[in-house]
Amino acid sequence: MSTYHPLTENEAIEIARSLTSVLPNAETLHCREIGDGNLNLVFHITDPNSGRSLIMKQALPYAKVVGESWPLTLDRARIESESLIIEGKLAPELVPQVYKYDPELALTIMEDLSDHVIMRRGLIEGGRYPRFAEDISTFLAQTLFFTSDLGMNQQEKKLRVRDFINPELCKITEDLIFDDPYTVSANNSYDAAIEDEAEELRTDGELHLEVALLREKFLTQAQALLHGDLHTGSIFITPESTKVIDPEFAYFGPMGFDIGAVLANLLLNYASRDGWHASDSEAADYREYLITTIRDIWTQFEAKFLKLWDEHGIDRIASAAPGYKELYMKRLLQDTIGFAGAKMVRRIVGLAHVADIDRIEDAAVRERAQRTALAIGKSLIKLNRRAESIEQLIDAAVTASSAVKA
Amino acid sequence: MSTYHPLTENEAIEIARSLTSVLPNAETLHCREIGDGNLNLVFHITDPNSGRSLIMKQALPYAKVVGESWPLTLDRARIESESLIIEGKLAPELVPQVYKYDPELALTIMEDLSDHVIMRRGLIEGGRYPRFAEDISTFLAQTLFFTSDLGMNQQEKKLRVRDFINPELCKITEDLIFDDPYTVSANNSYDAAIEDEAEELRTDGELHLEVALLREKFLTQAQALLHGDLHTGSIFITPESTKVIDPEFAYFGPMGFDIGAVLANLLLNYASRDGWHASDSEAADYREYLITTIRDIWTQFEAKFLKLWDEHGIDRIASAAPGYKELYMKRLLQDTIGFAGAKMVRRIVGLAHVADIDRIEDAAVRERAQRTALAIGKSLIKLNRRAESIEQLIDAAVTASSAVKA
Repeated sequence: MSTYHPLTENEAIEIARSLTSVLPNAETLHCREIGDGNLNLVFHITDPNSGRSLIMKQALPYAKVVGESWPLTLDRARIESESLIIEGKLAPELVPQVYKYDPELALTIMEDLSDHVIMRRGLIEGGRYPRFAEDISTFLAQTLFFTSDLGMNQQEKKLRVRDFINPELCKITEDLIFDDPYTVSANNSYDAAIEDEAEELRTDGELHLEVALLREKFLTQAQALLHGDLHTGSIFITPESTKVIDPEFAYFGPMGFDIGAVLANLLLNYASRDGWHASDSEAADYREYLITTIRDIWTQFEAKFLKLWDEHGIDRIASAAPGYKELYMKRLLQDTIGFAGAKMVRRIVGLAHVADIDRIEDAAVRERAQRTALAIGKSLIKLNRRAESIEQLIDAAVTASSAVKA
Repeated sequence: MSTYHPLTENEAIEIARSLTSVLPNAETLHCREIGDGNLNLVFHITDPNSGRSLIMKQALPYAKVVGESWPLTLDRARIESESLIIEGKLAPELVPQVYKYDPELALTIMEDLSDHVIMRRGLIEGGRYPRFAEDISTFLAQTLFFTSDLGMNQQEKKLRVRDFINPELCKITEDLIFDDPYTVSANNSYDAAIEDEAEELRTDGELHLEVALLREKFLTQAQALLHGDLHTGSIFITPESTKVIDPEFAYFGPMGFDIGAVLANLLLNYASRDGWHASDSEAADYREYLITTIRDIWTQFEAKFLKLWDEHGIDRIASAAPGYKELYMKRLLQDTIGFAGAKMVRRIVGLAHVADIDRIEDAAVRERAQRTALAIGKSLIKLNRRAESIEQLIDAAVTASSAVKA
């Protein structure tokens, strides 16, 4: 069983049986493959006697998206398991525990989180998560600070940069987020009703300049170890618990890309409630909940990051230079806002959409949500280098949203 | 002879004898060790019959600077030989040809350039090099463009970033250039006469902010494969030929660091002529020659880099976004100016000085040259983020120089 092949359910059970520390005295184990089969096999293995369980995630040597299939490195399983281990040390309780990683099989065996729900689904259903801002700001502050030149030995960091060189998965982001939506590309996918919007994205020079600058940062700035794909589909949640999963896009990049991903996906849900529930005070309440969450995430992140810097900063001149911290945090906010905008745009016209919006059945309502998301996204991209405060992101969202409704 | 040990002259001859394509039919070979013994052994091997020759450079497992010795990775020999090979492909005739690299012995066998002189020495002696601006601007444009995300496949570039992770040699730069000169450090070394200047460097908050930002770029911005130590002691020259040597500090960093290193070392020579030859019209002429060279290097570099971008740019949105090229070149000039300033400051108060200034015997004259170099360096560092044109660097140099003389 040591050379790579996609596992059968029986093989998965045999491997699980050897993990006696997780599944002690297991007699009969049940196995169910619960992945969508596009990128990975995911086996859910349970011991009905003890109630114990685990997840086995095996990378497949290809990606399937919208019917197409292309080869994809199995090395992403290594990157995912190594990231989870680093994140688990820096942000205990906020990622699934890794029990074992088998490089030959591209297999990660980890904690079963099936008592949680995928946050995107939770938000669509109107769930509220009072711990989320606290937890995700802790996750971001801890993982980003302690893998940056501010918080970790700068020579060790360079060796980590080397370990997390991730060309194939970075290319997916470079194409799908920082190129395709702004040109004619076979990868794009959008409703015919918003062809005018797609055309505008292809011809807006001001937008292209900002996207080129954001793309350059993504390509060159090895600031910290990112999750790399931190949308609400990569978060398992309950009102009491937050778990970040699936860091296979991890690499050393600009911190704002991770923070922006979280905010963008909250804003996509915000956009999905525009028009749809226009007459619904519950929807207005929920929008307010999302805005409050966004504000809390940035505010708490900033406070935690600065506290870590004060207490654990290892770069003498970065800690001592007057004005440097303030400038650093301002640039980080600006990056966050720019990347959030780019993440929103691509979810409307690019290859991969979000269920928050795609699931809206009424075409006119869906179209309005799409236009709202694009209006917010474009305005954040254009704002980014001028931004001074998280309130500007919130204003931009509210303003763009109102403009579409009017 | 396959495990590492410092070679004797006889062992060097034996190895050279095996390179029959370079030294065909060699009977007697002569060998002389011509290195300074601080970092490397350098064997100059000649065949008196044919007149042919070569250089064998072997890394030593330590560095000796000012009497101190510390361990230093032999991997720098790999980085040096791989860099020379890449540079040789991108800028033919502008680096020594590599005949062979032996990883076990940390040994690079290469073209003998002893018909050239070290450029620092040439400048000190008042030499003029009419090809230099042309050659070094070609070297910089070719090596920086074609190893950046603008000019090379962006996935291959990431693998190259991995190959050139160079923690130990980067740390030397991070400490000696971007930290020590601005604090009390045992690594610093300067004449007691300029204690007031050293004190000011330790307390100038505006300067510290700019140095922290430059340091951050050096730590995080994987823009292109740099030479990493491109001062005039790393250039062999004649009026007809320019050869860049010693890229053991190579890594993927901000382009402006290499360009700034060249300009800084021309400006250090410029500073060395202040006061010393004040009544000497030859010195004034030579200063004018240096300024013209600086202007030509930037102007020609910019034109060549933009031409490469037009003809070979591989990044769609970076090539198409209106205003991006202009902004890119402006930021590159700003980085160049900032790094040039940082390189000058450290050569006056830091660990490693330059002969251009240290060789001045008259203490008062030397002190004035040191103050001039510091005044130029500080003014470039403070200018960097506001700069729009290379003329501002030149003005800053002339103005700072006049202020010290007055």
